[in-house]
Amino acid sequence: MDSALEIQKPHDQLAAFLSDDMVAVNALIRDRMASEHAPRIPEVTAHLVEAGGKRLRPMMTLAAAHMCGYDGPFHVHLAATVEFIHTATLLHDDVVDESGQRRGRPTANLLWDNKSSVLVGDYLFSRSFQLMVETGSLRVLDILANASATIAEGEVLQLTAAQDLATTEAIYLQVVRGKTAALFSAATEVGGVIAGADDATVQALYDYGDALGVSFQIVDDLLDYQGQAAATGKNIGDDFRERKLTLPVIKAIALADAEERAFWQRTIEKGVQEDGDLDHALTLLNTHGTLAATRDDALAWAEKGKAALDGLPDHPVKQMLIDLADYVVDRVN
Amino acid sequence: MDSALEIQKPHDQLAAFLSDDMVAVNALIRDRMASEHAPRIPEVTAHLVEAGGKRLRPMMTLAAAHMCGYDGPFHVHLAATVEFIHTATLLHDDVVDESGQRRGRPTANLLWDNKSSVLVGDYLFSRSFQLMVETGSLRVLDILANASATIAEGEVLQLTAAQDLATTEAIYLQVVRGKTAALFSAATEVGGVIAGADDATVQALYDYGDALGVSFQIVDDLLDYQGQAAATGKNIGDDFRERKLTLPVIKAIALADAEERAFWQRTIEKGVQEDGDLDHALTLLNTHGTLAATRDDALAWAEKGKAALDGLPDHPVKQMLIDLADYVVDRVN
Repeated sequence: MDSALEIQKPHDQLAAFLSDDMVAVNALIRDRMASEHAPRIPEVTAHLVEAGGKRLRPMMTLAAAHMCGYDGPFHVHLAATVEFIHTATLLHDDVVDESGQRRGRPTANLLWDNKSSVLVGDYLFSRSFQLMVETGSLRVLDILANASATIAEGEVLQLTAAQDLATTEAIYLQVVRGKTAALFSAATEVGGVIAGADDATVQALYDYGDALGVSFQIVDDLLDYQGQAAATGKNIGDDFRERKLTLPVIKAIALADAEERAFWQRTIEKGVQEDGDLDHALTLLNTHGTLAATRDDALAWAEKGKAALDGLPDHPVKQMLIDLADYVVDRVN
Repeated sequence: MDSALEIQKPHDQLAAFLSDDMVAVNALIRDRMASEHAPRIPEVTAHLVEAGGKRLRPMMTLAAAHMCGYDGPFHVHLAATVEFIHTATLLHDDVVDESGQRRGRPTANLLWDNKSSVLVGDYLFSRSFQLMVETGSLRVLDILANASATIAEGEVLQLTAAQDLATTEAIYLQVVRGKTAALFSAATEVGGVIAGADDATVQALYDYGDALGVSFQIVDDLLDYQGQAAATGKNIGDDFRERKLTLPVIKAIALADAEERAFWQRTIEKGVQEDGDLDHALTLLNTHGTLAATRDDALAWAEKGKAALDGLPDHPVKQMLIDLADYVVDRVN
């Protein structure tokens, strides 16, 4: 893509605006992922931390702190905290999903082993914990402890709910909060808290992060059925083949007749899949209009995120966050 | 064993003295391991938490708080915290070790799957984090964050150092601190801190927990070569078969001639083991007197633990902790 166009993307605007802070965040991450005695730790971590992710979550913390006029040092600690938690969950997710690839590169569990992924994930989680304690804010610790519990509970829930046709949209939303939104909302919320923002502002930041995270995950799940492999790094139908009940399918099951229900039972619950099943699934999603309905949900969440920021004073970062919410759903619009 | 004799064991004395508190700890554990939405969580956790462990670690926290005259509610939170951290590490350890049994029962990774063990471990860790935040003590959070990092680093170190003949006694000690002593020392230390004890007392409690944990683990590693399966629940030579470099072998390698070194390289580094190798290993350990030397180390650590308590005022619990240090090494004396 043209680099002049590229710079227009909201996350690139954020990265440019926050570049000094992000240098500090990256230095802190490198410093704290070191281990004097266990070289396996920085090896595994570097593989993941330096794999060129967008660093969207730490930028959320920095952005929120800036919008609230913070001029202390601890937003950098919290941004690194959030990235460490994210990296730790990726390491454990890859073990749970038995993944072989992430962001187009082999996963740590494949390059090393599951043991290293589990234990280095634990190490990063404990390092994130040390970083947040350094801020000296019990309120920040409370927020991040609750977010960690939501994340872990959502992951277990996904494990048990994934192949259960009784899974409702409410349960899906809870899984999505665990997988994605809980860390986004904690990231923006702690940015406001560390800056000493008032309760209404902190709530607005939480609501924005939550809605952004939910729309982000819904779009991701939608792209699994209608994206282009080149753009998403995923193949169409991965979730179907892995028997993951995501929103388009949950909506289709709610509208299914007996024959369609039998199809979902065979392919998702029992995991008996044949050639042509994915095409048939796509036909059912289109017949019932659930891809369009899922897109509408993603758009509504993005609007909710933007609306949350309405009451906040003007700030260059505010517009970037509004644009980011639009950009997330533009991928499917 | 005769129940009249049984009650003389120091951990039974502690359990009797702390029984009211332990009722509260167990109630808090049951309350916090619940999950409204993910029933897999209490299933897995109950399997482990209610498997009849001695609850030695939470008792350490309660004992330290009592010795320091604490009369608030938070020692119960911290005791539950310590047990949750312990349970989380057991769940992850069983995945890493690919264990099939713990305390004579099938492990969670066998009953459910590795995924559940990883994610429920994460959940318990996040629940422990919430519990400690509730105490409102940043110093407690700092201690437990540092202990978590030591535990995780020690686990990774063990993964990479286990089969490396260059492993020194210093590295072994660090692994032991991670595996065992870091949680014991944090358990006793936070008991003193929550009670507002002075620095010298807090240091003494830390030193006691650290020394008790180190002696406990050295004894465990020694029993692997000279214990009775019925008493330990382990088979003689498990560590040898699993190619774990523990203190008796590290000492024997330091004294090995060329031929002996080749034997350790083949059996531990390369993992090529034949009938009779365990017997030959035991002969080498006895020839060089390293089982006796390891026992002497365990005794010295127990003495160090007892000496740490010297300066503390008399208290019924103080004598139980002294007796506990003796009891731990009595298993090999």
